Amino acid sequence: MTSTKPSLPKGTRDFSPEQMAKRLFIMDAIRHTFQLYGFLPLETPAMENLSVLTGKYGEEGDQLLFKILNSGDFLADVTTEDINKGSKHLSASIAEKGLRYDLTVPLARFIVMHRHELTFPFKRYQMQPVWRADRPQKGRYREFYQCDADMIGSTSLIGEAEIIWMAHDLFSKIGLTKFVVFINLRKILKAIANHIGQGEQETTLCTAIDKLDKIGMDKVKEELTQKNFSKESLHTLESILSINGSNDEKIEQLKKMIGSSDVGKEGIKELELLLTYAKLYPRATQVEINLTLARGLSYYTGSIFEIKATEVAIGSIGGGGRYDNLTDLFGLPNTSGVGISFGIDRIYDVLEEMKLFPKHSNQSPKILITNFDSYCEKESIKVIHQLRASNISSELYPEPAKLKKQLSYADAKQIPFVIIIGEEEIQKQAYTLKDMHSGEQHTGSIEDLLKFIKIQ
Amino acid sequence: MTSTKPSLPKGTRDFSPEQMAKRLFIMDAIRHTFQLYGFLPLETPAMENLSVLTGKYGEEGDQLLFKILNSGDFLADVTTEDINKGSKHLSASIAEKGLRYDLTVPLARFIVMHRHELTFPFKRYQMQPVWRADRPQKGRYREFYQCDADMIGSTSLIGEAEIIWMAHDLFSKIGLTKFVVFINLRKILKAIANHIGQGEQETTLCTAIDKLDKIGMDKVKEELTQKNFSKESLHTLESILSINGSNDEKIEQLKKMIGSSDVGKEGIKELELLLTYAKLYPRATQVEINLTLARGLSYYTGSIFEIKATEVAIGSIGGGGRYDNLTDLFGLPNTSGVGISFGIDRIYDVLEEMKLFPKHSNQSPKILITNFDSYCEKESIKVIHQLRASNISSELYPEPAKLKKQLSYADAKQIPFVIIIGEEEIQKQAYTLKDMHSGEQHTGSIEDLLKFIKIQ
Repeated sequence: MTSTKPSLPKGTRDFSPEQMAKRLFIMDAIRHTFQLYGFLPLETPAMENLSVLTGKYGEEGDQLLFKILNSGDFLADVTTEDINKGSKHLSASIAEKGLRYDLTVPLARFIVMHRHELTFPFKRYQMQPVWRADRPQKGRYREFYQCDADMIGSTSLIGEAEIIWMAHDLFSKIGLTKFVVFINLRKILKAIANHIGQGEQETTLCTAIDKLDKIGMDKVKEELTQKNFSKESLHTLESILSINGSNDEKIEQLKKMIGSSDVGKEGIKELELLLTYAKLYPRATQVEINLTLARGLSYYTGSIFEIKATEVAIGSIGGGGRYDNLTDLFGLPNTSGVGISFGIDRIYDVLEEMKLFPKHSNQSPKILITNFDSYCEKESIKVIHQLRASNISSELYPEPAKLKKQLSYADAKQIPFVIIIGEEEIQKQAYTLKDMHSGEQHTGSIEDLLKFIKIQ
Repeated sequence: MTSTKPSLPKGTRDFSPEQMAKRLFIMDAIRHTFQLYGFLPLETPAMENLSVLTGKYGEEGDQLLFKILNSGDFLADVTTEDINKGSKHLSASIAEKGLRYDLTVPLARFIVMHRHELTFPFKRYQMQPVWRADRPQKGRYREFYQCDADMIGSTSLIGEAEIIWMAHDLFSKIGLTKFVVFINLRKILKAIANHIGQGEQETTLCTAIDKLDKIGMDKVKEELTQKNFSKESLHTLESILSINGSNDEKIEQLKKMIGSSDVGKEGIKELELLLTYAKLYPRATQVEINLTLARGLSYYTGSIFEIKATEVAIGSIGGGGRYDNLTDLFGLPNTSGVGISFGIDRIYDVLEEMKLFPKHSNQSPKILITNFDSYCEKESIKVIHQLRASNISSELYPEPAKLKKQLSYADAKQIPFVIIIGEEEIQKQAYTLKDMHSGEQHTGSIEDLLKFIKIQ
């Protein structure tokens, strides 16, 4: 075996204990919140058959799938002709499986495969990594976690309401108060397209206005002019999109503009119901109607959500919506679902930038027990078992060493307390507890020291 | 988009909410125990460069690596000659990355890459899936979780002791009392090989005796005869391997047989120290010297562990040992490590077969709140927020429905309580709580019902 200088595949990351402690803080909060709302855990394999994945994410998405080379002699049945047709053609013959691209298509597959055993509405959560062969850049990775909760098999807007409430519970739990849940509805977008006389061009319209935040109104109009939107239609569009004020004010103005069409009426009624639900949350909610929100149009058919941190320029920290046709792809029609996906990496960056991680979110053991020699070690072992039986995470220094070395080890690992057990301590049956933060020392029986640590 | 009948890649599994609840019971116990012992969390990417993975698991292991097709036009730089040389040669040109095969090589890579930032001894745990292109069969999957804890950078046998204690804590935590931790040492195996005059053939000897349990002494002798072991050496071997009795008795006999050689002396001394450590555990330990234990010889250089459930025929539920050369492969010599790996799938099967999963290990919400109409729904929403604020997981039936339908939903989802909120209940401000198990009903304010639920 030769020695290799090791490296990581680009776009992938190790998570050190310090980073993991913070990630676990976020993930535990998300898992806890999902369970509090009655979502049940599900896990699916990292690999899916390419027949399941391909064609679900558009052509661009297909190109981002990581494909797994068939095992064994994968060239056995490949002809020269196959090879001459190029990479894309050949990959179909030599790779049957791919890594999952998101958690939504695997969910649809799972539901279709198990539809006869499941009780609907089926509420599941799933927290697993996904992989995309995207060009790596700041904040964009080739492996990242998604944390999804979905309710499948009910068209009720209670699904949407639960998502709004849940987001508020989650962010309050992790101390992030500066955020907004933006909402919009496909029906509102459709009514707008109709109203400006471009009902056939809804997708073109939405793709353009979704960029309003980034490129501004002039560029949006320019883009739509190129797609043959009339001057008049763009004038009307501009007046709709400039609707502002509180949610209630927005709804009043929407009523005047698109409230006469059937789809407009329905959309407004649903928006009103959503806002009513939001108000039933016991504290104030940060929900805002956003008419330019038009993401995920290839599968969202009802509501669309986006959650943004307001004090950090980082894009969305969560997103979701309602999809009516997802399981259609696998032959199960009429199964509406609504879901939310939280992005751990983005939430991590927000908490880091706003210094919101709790001080003691590291996972270091609480106590280091010293080890001086085989005589003292025996006593140290006795003590460490007592600590662990009291559910206090603790570490025994693995070999005899000078006190100074053991203290710097505790310091480097951010272990807050050291219990010193030398010959003198054993004789007196009174151990020394050193608080690594303050430098203070206390002496006493293990019970005394435990009391002291617990009141910290 | 066409409708595809979906399926799973062979050797992979979905984990339903029922299965996940049980898996989380085990995984939470493992994570908690690792942390109690001062191991810190680490995660590494699913994909590693093949230069990191290849050559670490022997030729057989290399063949079990899942390889990931390079993105984009992977054939661009491939010549006809490359293709003509066959699959194995071609795969090196079209696949740079593979899925991790275990958690140990990624750990070694991580340590070498971060050796200047880490504090040694470095204690990390890691719980992530690994992938092997093995032939799928009962109990053997192509994707499965490993749960590893390792201490790197100390040669002290305290590392081994912590593993023995930790296994006992873990299994006691999950209610599995019928298990044995088998231990052996490479030094003992070496001394045996020397003693029977086959010091040069240690690996051949070990590979054969490791199978003793499965194939019996006669077959082992047959195999070794074919490898030119003399009749006399096999006679001596048989007398050593038939050593039995308590650990102390085994050590007494070992002393007589191999105690005169240096390596034998050292091995026996280490075994004695390990047993002394085991006895310092506050309860009885189930540790057994097993001279035929000889797994993982390609990297274990010191101790070898194997943990078996004694009442279920399932093979090992955990294994580990000490390795001195792992980081050598990446250019960092003299870094001894010792670790243990627990197998969730096997532990799951044991708990299932012995009916040891706690009764309420399902993750279902504790309460379902009814939904009759928009008037009642408003009250239901008020109540559900109260429950969740009290940290009680609960679910609101998402749409108005008959009570019977909502009760059967609770039943199917194993939700133990239903709070019924109809017009009458709202008028009286006294809700009805139905215990789905006993069928009993209680009426009262939400505070009354909460008290009742909490004493359950």
